[in-house]
Amino acid sequence: MENGDGNEGASAFHVPEWMQIQFADQKQEFNKRPTKIGRRSLSRSISQSSTDSYSSAASYTDSSDDETSPRDKQQKNSKGNSDFCVKNIKQAEFGRREIEIAEQEMPALMALRKRAQGEKPLAGAKIVGCTHITAQTAVLMETLGALGAQCRWAACNIYSTLNEVAAALAESGFPVFAWKGESEDDFWWCIDRCVNVEGWQPNMILDDGGDLTHWIYKKYPNMFKKIKGIVEESVTGVHRLYQLSKAGKLCVPAMNVNDSVTKQKFDNLYCCRESILDGLKRTTDMMFGGKQVVVCGYGEVGKGCCAALKAMGSIVYVTEIDPICALQACMDGFRLVKLSEVIRQVDIVITCTGNKNVVTREHLDRMKNSCIVCNMGHSNTEIDVASLRTPELTWERVRSQVDHVIWPDGKRIVLLAEGRLLNLSCSTVPTFVLSITATTQALALIELYNAPEGRYKQDVYLLPKKMDEYVASLHLPTFDAHLTELTDEQAKYLGLNKNGPFKPNYYRY
Amino acid sequence: MENGDGNEGASAFHVPEWMQIQFADQKQEFNKRPTKIGRRSLSRSISQSSTDSYSSAASYTDSSDDETSPRDKQQKNSKGNSDFCVKNIKQAEFGRREIEIAEQEMPALMALRKRAQGEKPLAGAKIVGCTHITAQTAVLMETLGALGAQCRWAACNIYSTLNEVAAALAESGFPVFAWKGESEDDFWWCIDRCVNVEGWQPNMILDDGGDLTHWIYKKYPNMFKKIKGIVEESVTGVHRLYQLSKAGKLCVPAMNVNDSVTKQKFDNLYCCRESILDGLKRTTDMMFGGKQVVVCGYGEVGKGCCAALKAMGSIVYVTEIDPICALQACMDGFRLVKLSEVIRQVDIVITCTGNKNVVTREHLDRMKNSCIVCNMGHSNTEIDVASLRTPELTWERVRSQVDHVIWPDGKRIVLLAEGRLLNLSCSTVPTFVLSITATTQALALIELYNAPEGRYKQDVYLLPKKMDEYVASLHLPTFDAHLTELTDEQAKYLGLNKNGPFKPNYYRY
Amino acid sequence: MENGDGNEGASAFHVPEWMQIQFADQKQEFNKRPTKIGRRSLSRSISQSSTDSYSSAASYTDSSDDETSPRDKQQKNSKGNSDFCVKNIKQAEFGRREIEIAEQEMPALMALRKRAQGEKPLAGAKIVGCTHITAQTAVLMETLGALGAQCRWAACNIYSTLNEVAAALAESGFPVFAWKGESEDDFWWCIDRCVNVEGWQPNMILDDGGDLTHWIYKKYPNMFKKIKGIVEESVTGVHRLYQLSKAGKLCVPAMNVNDSVTKQKFDNLYCCRESILDGLKRTTDMMFGGKQVVVCGYGEVGKGCCAALKAMGSIVYVTEIDPICALQACMDGFRLVKLSEVIRQVDIVITCTGNKNVVTREHLDRMKNSCIVCNMGHSNTEIDVASLRTPELTWERVRSQVDHVIWPDGKRIVLLAEGRLLNLSCSTVPTFVLSITATTQALALIELYNAPEGRYKQDVYLLPKKMDEYVASLHLPTFDAHLTELTDEQAKYLGLNKNGPFKPNYYRY
Amino acid sequence: MENGDGNEGASAFHVPEWMQIQFADQKQEFNKRPTKIGRRSLSRSISQSSTDSYSSAASYTDSSDDETSPRDKQQKNSKGNSDFCVKNIKQAEFGRREIEIAEQEMPALMALRKRAQGEKPLAGAKIVGCTHITAQTAVLMETLGALGAQCRWAACNIYSTLNEVAAALAESGFPVFAWKGESEDDFWWCIDRCVNVEGWQPNMILDDGGDLTHWIYKKYPNMFKKIKGIVEESVTGVHRLYQLSKAGKLCVPAMNVNDSVTKQKFDNLYCCRESILDGLKRTTDMMFGGKQVVVCGYGEVGKGCCAALKAMGSIVYVTEIDPICALQACMDGFRLVKLSEVIRQVDIVITCTGNKNVVTREHLDRMKNSCIVCNMGHSNTEIDVASLRTPELTWERVRSQVDHVIWPDGKRIVLLAEGRLLNLSCSTVPTFVLSITATTQALALIELYNAPEGRYKQDVYLLPKKMDEYVASLHLPTFDAHLTELTDEQAKYLGLNKNGPFKPNYYRY
Repeated sequence: MENGDGNEGASAFHVPEWMQIQFADQKQEFNKRPTKIGRRSLSRSISQSSTDSYSSAASYTDSSDDETSPRDKQQKNSKGNSDFCVKNIKQAEFGRREIEIAEQEMPALMALRKRAQGEKPLAGAKIVGCTHITAQTAVLMETLGALGAQCRWAACNIYSTLNEVAAALAESGFPVFAWKGESEDDFWWCIDRCVNVEGWQPNMILDDGGDLTHWIYKKYPNMFKKIKGIVEESVTGVHRLYQLSKAGKLCVPAMNVNDSVTKQKFDNLYCCRESILDGLKRTTDMMFGGKQVVVCGYGEVGKGCCAALKAMGSIVYVTEIDPICALQACMDGFRLVKLSEVIRQVDIVITCTGNKNVVTREHLDRMKNSCIVCNMGHSNTEIDVASLRTPELTWERVRSQVDHVIWPDGKRIVLLAEGRLLNLSCSTVPTFVLSITATTQALALIELYNAPEGRYKQDVYLLPKKMDEYVASLHLPTFDAHLTELTDEQAKYLGLNKNGPFKPNYYRY
Repeated sequence: MENGDGNEGASAFHVPEWMQIQFADQKQEFNKRPTKIGRRSLSRSISQSSTDSYSSAASYTDSSDDETSPRDKQQKNSKGNSDFCVKNIKQAEFGRREIEIAEQEMPALMALRKRAQGEKPLAGAKIVGCTHITAQTAVLMETLGALGAQCRWAACNIYSTLNEVAAALAESGFPVFAWKGESEDDFWWCIDRCVNVEGWQPNMILDDGGDLTHWIYKKYPNMFKKIKGIVEESVTGVHRLYQLSKAGKLCVPAMNVNDSVTKQKFDNLYCCRESILDGLKRTTDMMFGGKQVVVCGYGEVGKGCCAALKAMGSIVYVTEIDPICALQACMDGFRLVKLSEVIRQVDIVITCTGNKNVVTREHLDRMKNSCIVCNMGHSNTEIDVASLRTPELTWERVRSQVDHVIWPDGKRIVLLAEGRLLNLSCSTVPTFVLSITATTQALALIELYNAPEGRYKQDVYLLPKKMDEYVASLHLPTFDAHLTELTDEQAKYLGLNKNGPFKPNYYRY
Repeated sequence: MENGDGNEGASAFHVPEWMQIQFADQKQEFNKRPTKIGRRSLSRSISQSSTDSYSSAASYTDSSDDETSPRDKQQKNSKGNSDFCVKNIKQAEFGRREIEIAEQEMPALMALRKRAQGEKPLAGAKIVGCTHITAQTAVLMETLGALGAQCRWAACNIYSTLNEVAAALAESGFPVFAWKGESEDDFWWCIDRCVNVEGWQPNMILDDGGDLTHWIYKKYPNMFKKIKGIVEESVTGVHRLYQLSKAGKLCVPAMNVNDSVTKQKFDNLYCCRESILDGLKRTTDMMFGGKQVVVCGYGEVGKGCCAALKAMGSIVYVTEIDPICALQACMDGFRLVKLSEVIRQVDIVITCTGNKNVVTREHLDRMKNSCIVCNMGHSNTEIDVASLRTPELTWERVRSQVDHVIWPDGKRIVLLAEGRLLNLSCSTVPTFVLSITATTQALALIELYNAPEGRYKQDVYLLPKKMDEYVASLHLPTFDAHLTELTDEQAKYLGLNKNGPFKPNYYRY
Repeated sequence: MENGDGNEGASAFHVPEWMQIQFADQKQEFNKRPTKIGRRSLSRSISQSSTDSYSSAASYTDSSDDETSPRDKQQKNSKGNSDFCVKNIKQAEFGRREIEIAEQEMPALMALRKRAQGEKPLAGAKIVGCTHITAQTAVLMETLGALGAQCRWAACNIYSTLNEVAAALAESGFPVFAWKGESEDDFWWCIDRCVNVEGWQPNMILDDGGDLTHWIYKKYPNMFKKIKGIVEESVTGVHRLYQLSKAGKLCVPAMNVNDSVTKQKFDNLYCCRESILDGLKRTTDMMFGGKQVVVCGYGEVGKGCCAALKAMGSIVYVTEIDPICALQACMDGFRLVKLSEVIRQVDIVITCTGNKNVVTREHLDRMKNSCIVCNMGHSNTEIDVASLRTPELTWERVRSQVDHVIWPDGKRIVLLAEGRLLNLSCSTVPTFVLSITATTQALALIELYNAPEGRYKQDVYLLPKKMDEYVASLHLPTFDAHLTELTDEQAKYLGLNKNGPFKPNYYRY
């Protein structure tokens, strides 16, 4: 997730510049190390680039005793298996507990496990995965296992692995190659260990960011002969796949799970509605009531932020470039302004545009004392933070993720997470949201693995509407929600199958 | 509008039964006369069938002095022109005043007129129209005139014509053939008078319901040789066009303006959010606070109803068949139930499904005393009203549009508008909403009329995203809303043209 | 009700000028006849002065056949009784039906009747009443009768009587003296007929506005010897009682039911939250979404208006004189401004202050075209309507209760109800709200009538907290609401009686 | 603050048992040490008992180097002054920075300082204070100094002192006697050092909890001869004063600042509206959307919790004992239930009653797996936590302030803060709220100190309405809020002084 509204402003026809990441440039990314590693966790659905997310869950072993590289250690799990590489296999029990807690909040995957007791829809599947390694991922992996699959796994991010969870997976017999704080070389080494195995060859790929796919393309292109499909969930990874497809180089079907309805609404609208409040509170302890806020961008993320702040008694202004979203903002009760009109008076500036330089140095110069500036949108481009790195301004780190930038006249701007994603850096993603994504991934794997010859070609597909609906239905019991069934007569009247799909593809929800 | 959520439950692939209206059956519709003509107006965007909407705005001449059929009268306007047929040309001044008031609230059309002072994008256009004849339509017609078009117009509904407005148009020189209370024969006669003219042949069609299109197909198929396109706004009319297209019989391009984003959101979500309250208040004077309400269907209409009632302090339950919409209802704070679970306890039942027999006699039998039942969805199918026409139940008309249905034990159900659309029958549609539709129609006419050869084939098209955005932008000044423009750098970064379109077609808003 | 926030700005220590109405001036009030009688009803709890409210419920006999004064008619009910004076006793059946409908929505009074089957707490009570004569009043009167009281009744307003209801009461044997359209002489004649009866002398007074009390003071002061108390519900009437008390002239205990918590919250906050939307819709059919609104005054009425409009997507500004209410507005998410700051940009101006000349001619001159101006506050003083009666401005009545005031440059202001109370004139008060007031009155009568000697002195009292709580509890079943009871242990811990009262008198709710 | 709704259920006439704390029993309180010290700060307005609040702000010196008791140290500030006792005077600079940050958010006190440049309303005042020692208190103390007062200060809580702030105050010359982690003996020693000084005798008392007042009563009763008054802000302390007053033992005027309007609304309604979300998120990272929640008690605290959760998409049920509050809950859109009706289905239980044993073991037994239980009300009595300390239940501490209580069948209840106040333990109080309280205290001191002889007797007073309004007005500039002033004509009309007070004392806001 880059708070998805990459589509905010992204056209179907043009390729946005920020997506035109070259694989060759990839390595440079590794130099952009974060200055500080956040205290709080964010998890696998969230980061598209292997270094972009550096937060981690409260760890049981923060002050890591041991500085030996996992690659140099000899470890075995209790059954004598050593086909893994994690920080410390002894932390397995702590990790197991985290996994058990996560299981309680991922009812859909648990339901899939139950249904799989009879049939094993992934029997014979050999899945290689590259995602954030968290408790929620563990629940996904163990579900895939219960469905019949064999899995090998690496981390898609050098900072996001929960070592205890990785240990627990290794203890349970999953070949996991990941630890928190990998070097770039470690990163690719881990991926390679997943795919380059004697006597085992993957036939499915689950990727988050496209690095795994890239590696196989580059090193083991022949593997694609046996691979039935790729499931990819990040904006960046999906974009790469579309590029491959356009270039005629995509050699297996791929499933874009990023753009399924359920995932989009949860990752963006519903999740941000809560995380904007959470992120602001945890960093600033501010009171929302009566505060003047400007939210730049009224896509799903902006809609969530605006609704939450309005409900808490803030006065919210909106900026937009798209007249349709702008009209929605009006009808929802927000003054639509240009940023410059309100910049002097607002207490908080929040960007959710997917665009770059939405908040410029000129805006920052005109903000009032104590104005809070943060980004809920895309990557770290929206606020021109670089423009603040000038000699006349003083930076003061007042808390983790909170900087005061001080003007010569004493004015302070409160910059959160150095302009990176607030919800990524300063709040958490509820397990329930991750459950939706993980279930979507599992179903996409099942669909691709079992699809009859010819249903999917060498192209990028969206999850069939019916499976999107199925993901939703698996989550309804959480809310004790009771769906109505169509009668035969009604189904006929509507021209629908009683089991769905219920809407045309263009339906907007 | 049938509160559009025809798409609630309508699949792209199947043809819903309720849309499978045969042209041959059309006449039978005329027998279904309403028992009572509502006091309040509803207007052109609203009815898909020529008899379904019978309300009209407060009329200056309610007790029509004169029972002579307009067809038998000889009337001339002040310039001696007699190419029209209206109830009473002398009412023109009253109608003009209504038009002037409407103009104030239709800024987008007025803006189009201004821009047309230089260029006349409809110069040479000969438009034949068949819509509700209201003040808002008059503003549209006079705008089309200002853009260079010649127009001839009939009513798409035998009850909805505002006689004064028709008179005002006739006085201004528009050949209008319409009055309130046409017979079926009158109805087709009026349409015929629009198209069957010596020395004038239409080259554009603006239709609402498809009757005009149908008439030309049947009587004057050769006319299509000169016709550049059809603009159709109703669900029913659009469906007919898709059927023609499927059958290979569509012989000109057609524009489906019903499904444009802006229109959908306004006709359904935003408009129903207000009209559910208005319709209930005007009919029952009830208090919303603390009332228990069940809303059947959580499409755009249901979302609007739920949001409004929740805001007024009602406790709202939702029923749904689609798990995705169901999950949205949960996240928005509504208990998702089956109707039978809450039917005994609720004070109000509102249907917004587009389905049939959602509220059955069994439900009605179990409702508590004084329960209010109404329909905001589609046509009059959702509540099984027919099942209440049994001898043991007594009907008591307590107000216009309000019936008490009384059970043998004295229990009363309050049935609104006999199960027809509440907002159609018992509230009004704000001019602002109509302005959006009318502007969309005007732009669709301009687009089709000016499109270079080959851009549109003999098929049904959605309005190009860019024009949808343009409609929205024309309405922003009403809210004193200021759109932000992309910088060159930002446009490049996003891969967008600075003037839009800003979103891919699948964007959900 | 003057939308109560008479207290908005009213001090406990000073006597507001607008309350310093002299009895002597009373007659002049009769000259201020309304220019137009509203179509929709407002009812008894609502008007403090005998001419201030001129709306009436939809009448079955609008075009009164008969112009003979009721005083000149000889009428008998079906039992031969002629101790009444109403418009037409033959309308009794229509009235009975209205009463039956009202009974369904006044569960608390019906519950009192049931409880009274055993004991008759008003046995021996002879109540003379002077209130609006509506279906709801009838339910109150018949409840008082069921509780053992004898009643005689006149109208407190010359326009508000529902003739059919008065007839139904007369038919049932209640001596009622009231009709719609009384002259001033009729008004006092009716009151006199209630009190000046041979062989019957009242021992309780139920008054609304103080006119009945005034009449007895002036004409029959000796009657007070037998009178046990006065129950008064209007702001004006209560004020008169406080004046009498201050002057040492109050000779019996009086109960101020206007200021009971339940009544205040319902008449003001909850009722206005709904009626502001209703009043605006019925008069203007406007759309609320995106509109800019300024609400003058943030008392209970203002809070209700602001909450409702915000929920419907309006952008709301607030003006206040009281810094505490102002701070509340801020925390609730409204920009606090001076009227002059926003007057040029708003679409709607709503006054709820209880003050005078809040909207001045200068403000009106600066409003933009089509701005809607209305009053939800007190009487008709808040908008300086008189300042608009100047030659250069044209008034155009466009609907009942809606005037366009047109400036020389063509600018139109939409003035609702000529600046009188919008909710009084243009919407209805739900029966549920009236039920609360009527129940409060009934309990106040019971309390005063049964109070042991010495509990109440010759002073003005608020309803005991416990009875206020009782009124509330009688209305909970309407919402199927289940109250929790304290355990003995909890009651002891809190130092409370298990049956209440539960709060100290200063509790703010 | 005990989330004030001590008044929820507290009668004006009876003395609740929980308030009947005997001074003699006080020492026993010291045995009830918290098992764990929370990570997050709560501050001075919040705790009524000297051990009830154990959280502290993020400290710069958590791992206190030094275990020597401050009482045993010899410390001097940079000016050589040694009249203080703090943990470590060298931390002064860190504390100063905290104070500077707090100053930015306490505009009202800073405004008072400015106004005091000319006049010194506290010149000659010798104030002894006993409150939480936080940055906000420091701003208050330095403001009192700027207004002319001399101050000596002790902590009202053995855990809540911020050592750095205490050091900064000592460095600036304030005689402060307080550190984090005092023993009971230290506690009274510090208080004694404040009052038992040679050559200095206090003439004003600022107390929070009543311990300081108690100490003077007990040890130095003669001091009261010179003392002009007591300002007390806690529920407990205020209760003690009322007890003294009742017993005729109060020998100076006392000001109850706990019950001023502004403080009440901010401490309860507005603050809890935000802190319920914050407290739940920080402890559980849960998602609010779709969750079923029961809130016990619908006083100000309950109203705040309900509004916030409803806005975030939770489905909220309410329990109440008071029918008036119950009716408010209904009108605000909440189902009013008994706890037992919904206990099996809810995801979260929140208590806000001020009562005891609202959630019993029986309720806890019936909750579903993963149900979250927390207390926002009073002290730690509302949830019967003691009943969970039985052998068959397993407690598992999963995070700071979060326990899983596990039933034999594996069911887990998530208990937050061991049933103590959630917002105290797991979220923070915004400085803005503390600013309101501190300003109220400063004005109360000024009022008592400057009141002419006779205005206040030996009784407990509420802050005059006008000063309450003044506190509010000092905070309006924070929101750039512009108050409207009455014209002379309007003031006369309303019978008000143009500068207030604007409302009668019974006004409910």
